[in-house]
Amino acid sequence: MAIVTDSPAPSATADAGDVLTATADGFAARHIGVGPQDRQRMLDVLGLSSVQELVDRVLPEQIRTRAPLALPQPLSEDGARVALAELAARNRPCTAMIGLGYHGTLTPAVIRRNVLEDPSWYTAYTPYQPEISQGRLEALLNFQTVVSDLTGLPVAGASLLDEPTAAAEAMALARRSVKKGQVFLMDADTLPQTIAVVQTRARALGIEAVVAEGDLVTALQTTDAFAVLVQTPGASGALRGFEELSAVAQKAHDNGALVVAACDLLALTITADVASWGADIAVGSSQRFGVPLFYGGPHAAFMSVREGLQRSLPGRLVGVSVDADGTSAYRLALQTREQHIRREKATSNICTAQVLLAVTAAMYAVYHGPDGLRRIATRLHTDATRVAAALQQAGFELAHTSFFDTLQVRVPHRGRQVVAAARQAGLHLRPVDPDTVGISIGEDTGEHELQALCEVFGATLSERTSGDLAGQVREREFLTHPVFRTHRSETQMLRYLRSLSDRDFALDRGMIPLGSCTMKLNATTEMEPISLPGFADLHPFAPVEDAGGYRDLVATLEEWLAEVTGYARVSVQPNAGSQGELAGLLAIRAYHRSRGEHERVVCLIPSSAHGTNAASAVMAGMSVVVVRSTAEGTVDLDDLRAKIEAHRDRLAAIMVTYPSTHGVFEETITELCAAVHEAGGQVYVDGANLNALLGLAKPGEIGADVSHLNLHKTFCIPHGGGGPGVGPVGVREHLAPFLPTHPMTDVPSLDGHAGDGAAPAVGPVSGAPYGSAGILPISWAYIAMMGADGLRAATEQAVLSANYVAARLAQHYPVLYAGRGGLVAHECILDLRPLTRSSGITVDDVAKRLVDYGFHAPTMSFPVAGTLMVEPTESEDLAEIDRFCEAMIGIRREIARVETGEWSREDNPLVNAPHTLARVTADEWTHAYSRTVAGYPTGRRSGPVAEGRGDKYWPPVARIDQAYGDRNLVCSCPPPEAFES
Amino acid sequence: MAIVTDSPAPSATADAGDVLTATADGFAARHIGVGPQDRQRMLDVLGLSSVQELVDRVLPEQIRTRAPLALPQPLSEDGARVALAELAARNRPCTAMIGLGYHGTLTPAVIRRNVLEDPSWYTAYTPYQPEISQGRLEALLNFQTVVSDLTGLPVAGASLLDEPTAAAEAMALARRSVKKGQVFLMDADTLPQTIAVVQTRARALGIEAVVAEGDLVTALQTTDAFAVLVQTPGASGALRGFEELSAVAQKAHDNGALVVAACDLLALTITADVASWGADIAVGSSQRFGVPLFYGGPHAAFMSVREGLQRSLPGRLVGVSVDADGTSAYRLALQTREQHIRREKATSNICTAQVLLAVTAAMYAVYHGPDGLRRIATRLHTDATRVAAALQQAGFELAHTSFFDTLQVRVPHRGRQVVAAARQAGLHLRPVDPDTVGISIGEDTGEHELQALCEVFGATLSERTSGDLAGQVREREFLTHPVFRTHRSETQMLRYLRSLSDRDFALDRGMIPLGSCTMKLNATTEMEPISLPGFADLHPFAPVEDAGGYRDLVATLEEWLAEVTGYARVSVQPNAGSQGELAGLLAIRAYHRSRGEHERVVCLIPSSAHGTNAASAVMAGMSVVVVRSTAEGTVDLDDLRAKIEAHRDRLAAIMVTYPSTHGVFEETITELCAAVHEAGGQVYVDGANLNALLGLAKPGEIGADVSHLNLHKTFCIPHGGGGPGVGPVGVREHLAPFLPTHPMTDVPSLDGHAGDGAAPAVGPVSGAPYGSAGILPISWAYIAMMGADGLRAATEQAVLSANYVAARLAQHYPVLYAGRGGLVAHECILDLRPLTRSSGITVDDVAKRLVDYGFHAPTMSFPVAGTLMVEPTESEDLAEIDRFCEAMIGIRREIARVETGEWSREDNPLVNAPHTLARVTADEWTHAYSRTVAGYPTGRRSGPVAEGRGDKYWPPVARIDQAYGDRNLVCSCPPPEAFES
Repeated sequence: MAIVTDSPAPSATADAGDVLTATADGFAARHIGVGPQDRQRMLDVLGLSSVQELVDRVLPEQIRTRAPLALPQPLSEDGARVALAELAARNRPCTAMIGLGYHGTLTPAVIRRNVLEDPSWYTAYTPYQPEISQGRLEALLNFQTVVSDLTGLPVAGASLLDEPTAAAEAMALARRSVKKGQVFLMDADTLPQTIAVVQTRARALGIEAVVAEGDLVTALQTTDAFAVLVQTPGASGALRGFEELSAVAQKAHDNGALVVAACDLLALTITADVASWGADIAVGSSQRFGVPLFYGGPHAAFMSVREGLQRSLPGRLVGVSVDADGTSAYRLALQTREQHIRREKATSNICTAQVLLAVTAAMYAVYHGPDGLRRIATRLHTDATRVAAALQQAGFELAHTSFFDTLQVRVPHRGRQVVAAARQAGLHLRPVDPDTVGISIGEDTGEHELQALCEVFGATLSERTSGDLAGQVREREFLTHPVFRTHRSETQMLRYLRSLSDRDFALDRGMIPLGSCTMKLNATTEMEPISLPGFADLHPFAPVEDAGGYRDLVATLEEWLAEVTGYARVSVQPNAGSQGELAGLLAIRAYHRSRGEHERVVCLIPSSAHGTNAASAVMAGMSVVVVRSTAEGTVDLDDLRAKIEAHRDRLAAIMVTYPSTHGVFEETITELCAAVHEAGGQVYVDGANLNALLGLAKPGEIGADVSHLNLHKTFCIPHGGGGPGVGPVGVREHLAPFLPTHPMTDVPSLDGHAGDGAAPAVGPVSGAPYGSAGILPISWAYIAMMGADGLRAATEQAVLSANYVAARLAQHYPVLYAGRGGLVAHECILDLRPLTRSSGITVDDVAKRLVDYGFHAPTMSFPVAGTLMVEPTESEDLAEIDRFCEAMIGIRREIARVETGEWSREDNPLVNAPHTLARVTADEWTHAYSRTVAGYPTGRRSGPVAEGRGDKYWPPVARIDQAYGDRNLVCSCPPPEAFES
Repeated sequence: MAIVTDSPAPSATADAGDVLTATADGFAARHIGVGPQDRQRMLDVLGLSSVQELVDRVLPEQIRTRAPLALPQPLSEDGARVALAELAARNRPCTAMIGLGYHGTLTPAVIRRNVLEDPSWYTAYTPYQPEISQGRLEALLNFQTVVSDLTGLPVAGASLLDEPTAAAEAMALARRSVKKGQVFLMDADTLPQTIAVVQTRARALGIEAVVAEGDLVTALQTTDAFAVLVQTPGASGALRGFEELSAVAQKAHDNGALVVAACDLLALTITADVASWGADIAVGSSQRFGVPLFYGGPHAAFMSVREGLQRSLPGRLVGVSVDADGTSAYRLALQTREQHIRREKATSNICTAQVLLAVTAAMYAVYHGPDGLRRIATRLHTDATRVAAALQQAGFELAHTSFFDTLQVRVPHRGRQVVAAARQAGLHLRPVDPDTVGISIGEDTGEHELQALCEVFGATLSERTSGDLAGQVREREFLTHPVFRTHRSETQMLRYLRSLSDRDFALDRGMIPLGSCTMKLNATTEMEPISLPGFADLHPFAPVEDAGGYRDLVATLEEWLAEVTGYARVSVQPNAGSQGELAGLLAIRAYHRSRGEHERVVCLIPSSAHGTNAASAVMAGMSVVVVRSTAEGTVDLDDLRAKIEAHRDRLAAIMVTYPSTHGVFEETITELCAAVHEAGGQVYVDGANLNALLGLAKPGEIGADVSHLNLHKTFCIPHGGGGPGVGPVGVREHLAPFLPTHPMTDVPSLDGHAGDGAAPAVGPVSGAPYGSAGILPISWAYIAMMGADGLRAATEQAVLSANYVAARLAQHYPVLYAGRGGLVAHECILDLRPLTRSSGITVDDVAKRLVDYGFHAPTMSFPVAGTLMVEPTESEDLAEIDRFCEAMIGIRREIARVETGEWSREDNPLVNAPHTLARVTADEWTHAYSRTVAGYPTGRRSGPVAEGRGDKYWPPVARIDQAYGDRNLVCSCPPPEAFES
């Protein structure tokens, strides 16, 4: 370990990064923010001689991994660029005409460059601090408006993970809302991956998810259904008539059941909105609104609901409220719905959304506007009609004659041949069965492709005609808000995007020291490859032989992740941490069942756990039993033993986070694992804090059986303003047969480890076989460029930086839960409760005041109310970390002035924070402190400053009134007048 | 012309852009900011029924072109993306080991994404308004510091066009400074393209540019040289010893001659700076500091000079001054050097620089720092040494044994074979002559390439050794400023780049209504392809068979440009408008000479001409005779006739701009052309205002013989903060033989039109055969996507928008120089002189006050002092144009309050503009107007605003004191303390 542990003594000429540059052609030195000299300074503050000494002191000896990580020699940035370009070139994205929920689309270049490829959007965090997130909140409100307008249902959420999980969430929502019935009835023409994911979820929850045979009205008559899902247009492309849909809804409602419509946003621009025929809930994917196919993800799914169901909506919901000055402002609404509040009562574990993709889809709608969207939809429908006419003229039979953009053609005994011929012509068709092929027209299907398609069938493309859309007529206007009718030129669009991102604070402006969320660098070299057509434009159900690059990339990444975690197998299918948790728990459940131990359903969860843990356990059909924490924040082993005894025969698992959510390496982890194993339980280690372990210890070696990893934490997937996340699950060998499978791939997992034995497949947890495949190049690049030494160096720096912050701030704020030697792991908790008692200043006041100092707040009140959890990550440099420490110390001094009464409790810069420009430039100033104290708490700097930061971020709104917004719920774009001040 | 002229009546449901979308799959509608409804509103204001009526009224009948432009059907954006990707794929950029001033380099991804691909950098204008350009001015100051530190010469400019033209500028500078001698002596080991360009320039100026035979000291003894140019390392790679270089300098100085060093910035990190051995002037290219090869350009060249020569420095120079509040601030220094001040006395026509590329190179130095640069240089040198040792061991003879990174190997009679074998192995070597090949190591040459190279020679790569660098040792420290020692991590670099671009106002924030500069949209689809490796990574002297895509692209673009201008031939070689002018005038000179009319050297130039015109004429060896303008701003035909008579036998040409620099279509243009032709002169029409003609008229059809086009004006090359420009030259058939040639290409121009007959070749005007080839895809995409109808529609909209602005503002400010019917062309001039007289408010005050309103000022005092010239371009939407008009009207009202004495002349928001945040948030406020008036002149908007602009741009510094900076010249990074306020 010549990298960090061996820091040379600082010398006058040594350049920060010298040592790290010796390996990895410098990437590790670019990723890690602190160079050798500054590292030595930090060690000095801690009284340590080396990083090795820090590691020895902080990490329990018994969990240390011995061998270095077995990873290839690190690539240079240019080497990674070339390697990924070669992998991309080994994918062959033909024109994707497969359909099934994934469609060819044209991402407007201005959106690709200025959203998907712009750090001010992709390095942003979830908008939990709404005052500094107004730009992306507006973008998400646009998304909600698009969904709400097009589906006709008044309340739409700010995106879900994918269409199949959205359908499963709809099932759960319906289950909560309707008290009778055990069956979730699904249209036979539902997307096959939706059926499979819903069934995975239903099995765990004891719901019968039934695919209807025959027509739905009849099926509803004979089934005790609490809800019915109708896919429209269907997976086959068939478009039902308005009357038929209304009849299904009527019948369902008569039975007291809810109606879920799985629908297509583009089709909805010219067909009847689903509310009009009676749907209560709409779900679907917004992928075809400009989001690349990405071999299956990430894409933003949507859900909207009718009035009355909004409080049951899973995931995030953006709403409008007012700030302290009465200005309209956006923020997340109805936050009390979230699972981390409800804990074990939760029934959805959704946390990560697909914000970056939802923003892209929303901006696609903003750029095209209602007329543009209708034009695109009409062209696709017309082209499908032309193809249909051509095929019929050439003697082919179509499976249905009412359709939007997708056909099924009878080609008796020639299905395989036709698909192969089309592939030769550069087109990917859907092999439905030996006698049938599917054809779906996308936005990228041009005249050339239509001609080529007809040639495959020996048909001649027809002149323009138009179909009947099953008699459906869209009546409701949509996207009437000016935002969808203004930005028609690229210049306007560019400025709109810039004006939004300018309102937000993201990693491109400064540190986001969020404990547990690990806001580290998303390096450009990691990000660039996702735009390569080879990665961006491949359909998830493309033939394996056209996906060689992806298959290799996934196999390598799964192998690397297994190596660094110490597990036997990893599956990248889960497309968020929550899905990884579910997959891991489902594997445990299935394992117990495979051994006949059906009664093992108790899941022990420490009181300090992430909120999603409990929710995932419930979703996996388990019963949650909470284990107490000690005053030191560690799991109370006595209570654990008592709970194990109490539930010994029913014990399924324990879920713990390591290092703990309190930011310490618990000494007792091996003891804990042993106790659970001894009672026949499995150990689930939440990988949320893997950033503190990588290269030093492996969950799979310290006694854990399964973990999920948040690639958007440790492995550089950008947070994107609240998603995408990627949550692979890793397991020891005995659980490998129970990893997620997928109905649409030849090999359920790359090396066929599942479905190959006696064990029944768990089924898929995500819509696409490899989840958010399109962004896996990011984590691949990170591991490839860091190598074993770089990854370990990053961990060590993360731990060092956290301890440095703790040491600098300990004299100003009590640091909770230090571990042995008074050291923390990769994050530290600052306790504000004594100060709140003495001054009335709350954790909220401090968080908002940090905005005035130019920072995003640390994690608030998690895992302990009244505290801030700080995680600097390894990417921040010492100057920025010091700037943060000085801000916190400055705030402490300000609190002191409130404590002494120099400033009143009612008028001081903390309770009034954050200070907007509107306030600080106002003609009147009535506060007890100056404008300078308000806006420039560390003093003014003006003019350009080559050194230091002369550039201050100003929040566009003042503190937002959360309660007002929840009382006056507005979740789609408000009229412009609402913003007049 | 169904596009604009046929606007349908506005209807309630018509979407802006509907009509335009009917063709071109919408791109024209995305490029043109105004949709049909708003277009009708604008026509209504002008009392016109249609765009056709406007065109009929404004454009003289006799110059109208009849047939539509013969261009292919427009491509969609996706179609252009695919077509350009295919062209790029037809280039085969092997590892470029050819050298000759172009070297493989690795652009750090964080710089590629956040500078080269970021609209906030590439859509910025030249920093003539320094208060709103502090970010890029700092970046350019970094560039100057890099050049100054590495060359050891104290004053460096903010970039020149390419190394050969920089050498030619150095020759001109020396010519101005040294009064004796006729010879410019050049080292025989000078880059061949430098020799050729210098000779082109020298011929026109009557200077003997002589290539030394034998050693330079001897040559200096026998030559009457006013300056000598030494290339170090030489084109061959040979590195002269310090003693030898000193002896040359000593000898030159003894003779009273100046010494120009053409040098390599990377070599200078480990070899002696050129000042140390006596160079007076340094020139070279900064390409290898992270700027892609781009098949020859654009790259930023540099020049630095010793104390005493700074006032002769051509091009732009950034300096430090102070603002009105005493804060340090950057701005362009010594502006009185510029050719548009000196006019016909100028000896350099340099205007455009290579700002975007200079910023890239500067940031490469910021990111790597001195140690990083030294590491890279040392690695290259070591690798060259290893290869040299291997080749010698294998029995090959080297042409020289002292080198930095480039070798010449003797391969008797096998030169061609070796180069071919290397090409097979993926390496481009330099075919020096039949017996010699050149090998140059670049930053992108890795172990794999070194191995492959040795295999070509049957040699075995040696272990690490190191060469002697001809005994040179760099002694002077460099890049000691903190800015080069701070930004080592990608996070730091990202934030530094963002903080700089945040200080600037570019097109991504709002309109830049610069008359004559045409700040129109640079569409993302145009910009994206330049990053494709096929375009970015090709060496300009790569074999033709590996440049098929570029050759096609250049041929097509030249053909399209010929079609739209009405010329027989176009050459894209000139890499800026100034070079295009020079090329055009050289063609005229050569034409006259080819007819034996050597005495034709008089060039008539109207007094309203662009400053570069006169300078170019002087550089082409012509004598400038100024023709008066009438009070209406048109060329005074009587004076013209008188001047023609006075110089009839010596008349070479007239240079006019059409429409005129006054923004009107002169009725007399055909008459003017006829008069000049009749006297045996040629007509040069400056293409600066082609934006007002395209699709409506063609210079080549109205009587002109030659024009240059500014692709960065009409054809969407981004301004990049002051460059790159591209300035193709178009000529009628008789001038075609006199277009630029190039010594390094098999075919001087693509269809062999030059050098094929009796006429002597003019020679090259730029270093690379196709100039700034790397950005030609931008203009190609623009024309391909707009098509004939789109281009014409853009012109019509540009004219309509200018007339709309003139009409709205005419009642508030006199509009100068309207043409027939009171209409202007594509820009209008607002006369402020009466207001200055009545209120003391100057054009400067108005320009700076516009910043407070959120605008970049229009062009100031050109072509008439005391005026503002406004060009909205076709890309701006009506809302933005109206916002501008309202700002100007608001300012007029403010002036009225000064006129009436309500505000004093000393304290009013105009003379104090622009208002910084530092001022408006200050604890004290002493002005006669409020903070709101100062900072929010159109009223406050706070909070997010879906409609309208809630986001205000604040200048980081107040008005800058120009004189102070020139008195106290500081042209490299000042110490950080300078910025403390």
